[in-house]
Amino acid sequence: MKQPEAWIISVGNELLNGRIVNTNLSWLARKLTIDGYLVRAALTVRDDCDDIAWAFRTALDRGADLVVSTGGLGPTFDDKTSECLSRALGRRHVVNERALQMVEEKYRERGLEITEHRVKMAMMPEGAEPIRNEAGTAPGILVREGDALIVVLPGVPREMKDIFERVEPLIRERAPYLHYVSKDLVVKGVPESAAAPLIERVMKEFPVYIKSHPHGHEIKKPVLRINVTASSPEEEEARRIVEAALEKLKDLLIEEGGEVEGIEDAGQGEADSP
Amino acid sequence: MKQPEAWIISVGNELLNGRIVNTNLSWLARKLTIDGYLVRAALTVRDDCDDIAWAFRTALDRGADLVVSTGGLGPTFDDKTSECLSRALGRRHVVNERALQMVEEKYRERGLEITEHRVKMAMMPEGAEPIRNEAGTAPGILVREGDALIVVLPGVPREMKDIFERVEPLIRERAPYLHYVSKDLVVKGVPESAAAPLIERVMKEFPVYIKSHPHGHEIKKPVLRINVTASSPEEEEARRIVEAALEKLKDLLIEEGGEVEGIEDAGQGEADSP
Repeated sequence: MKQPEAWIISVGNELLNGRIVNTNLSWLARKLTIDGYLVRAALTVRDDCDDIAWAFRTALDRGADLVVSTGGLGPTFDDKTSECLSRALGRRHVVNERALQMVEEKYRERGLEITEHRVKMAMMPEGAEPIRNEAGTAPGILVREGDALIVVLPGVPREMKDIFERVEPLIRERAPYLHYVSKDLVVKGVPESAAAPLIERVMKEFPVYIKSHPHGHEIKKPVLRINVTASSPEEEEARRIVEAALEKLKDLLIEEGGEVEGIEDAGQGEADSP
Repeated sequence: MKQPEAWIISVGNELLNGRIVNTNLSWLARKLTIDGYLVRAALTVRDDCDDIAWAFRTALDRGADLVVSTGGLGPTFDDKTSECLSRALGRRHVVNERALQMVEEKYRERGLEITEHRVKMAMMPEGAEPIRNEAGTAPGILVREGDALIVVLPGVPREMKDIFERVEPLIRERAPYLHYVSKDLVVKGVPESAAAPLIERVMKEFPVYIKSHPHGHEIKKPVLRINVTASSPEEEEARRIVEAALEKLKDLLIEEGGEVEGIEDAGQGEADSP
């Protein structure tokens, strides 16, 4: 079985004049690698319609099974990704009714009217599906083109991650080549801010993705559920990596004064959903 | 006059499995922007000869005036950039005598023999020029192809920067579209480690590049020469940006207990040379 290939497209002048370090790219690259993809290449382009359309066409023409883009999704004039993707696919750029509902809900909640700029956030290539954005207003975009899947995300990291994790089960499902193992560790007494550098250390040492979910009170009574995932063609190997990373993390948390409650299977596809 | 366009190519599996955040890209993007280029796109590819050759061909075919690559330059089997660039250009991949001399000097100094792996670092596309690497062993590569300039750098940031700044005067010379202003500020009494976060703050606020050169003793008697550069189609505007950034930096250094000695023109092309 051939491992599916992913391409990542980053849109934004700020990435090409050096004002911003592209941490979205490394976050997505690690996620997609663990989700079972070979990330074949990444293209960074300016807020320019020809360049954006070129990037999508290039990824598809060179055999991408999955294309994930970040940036250029929103209400302003330089948010062009959706329109230029329509052009790249040769599809009409239309108001998506479900997306419009999502956007309207957001603004109505706050007693705001729908303006032309807000409708813009509901315009997508014909046949696309909107993906709910709980961290912001512009919905993500899911498009199927031939056998490939295209996922369009905003550039703001918090929104990008929220929307990505909402479609991640679908993305993972299309990459059956790897076995995916996900386990949770629950720890009391370590604030998330103190766990953060320990998690970074373990992520440097092991090919895993780690996410912490705070439950108690950050300072008075912190409780963290920490999810560790890895993948490998061999299920045993994925399990071994997750367990080694958990063991290391457990030691570090105990050194930090934490009380580790236990480790449990997190189940397939659910670990990262919001 | 058309502003010259640059493409940046980043080579390395570690960039596409999310183990590394690509800070070389943002560093180069800012440098090239200030040097007078429109950075048109950045391509990140794996340590795979087809992909590397494709990236160089794509940049050239899409009209790059300058291509700068990082990564894949060195003695190991997965350092393939030079060989794959030769392939992309349809040139023979040969031992460059001047590069071999540079490599031999490095190893002879330490009493080490030239091995096959070390000769590999002197192999380049026919007609290329080596660029001295004072921070490491593998020389950089300069190739002229038609009207375009190609600069191949290693991935280790310290070596990448050392070699880039050695060819920067040539790079800047080819971009006469922008006026480049470079000024130095000399400050006593602030260790470089204390100046670093202040410099970062100013670089966030203003479109400038700032580099500090320590002269005294870091702790006992620190003296720093700090170089600030910016560019703009209007010379006045470039000067205004540099002066505003210097003013801010000066205030911050004085708050930190520094004694600012004066501000002086740093001259064209020399500010960043080693």
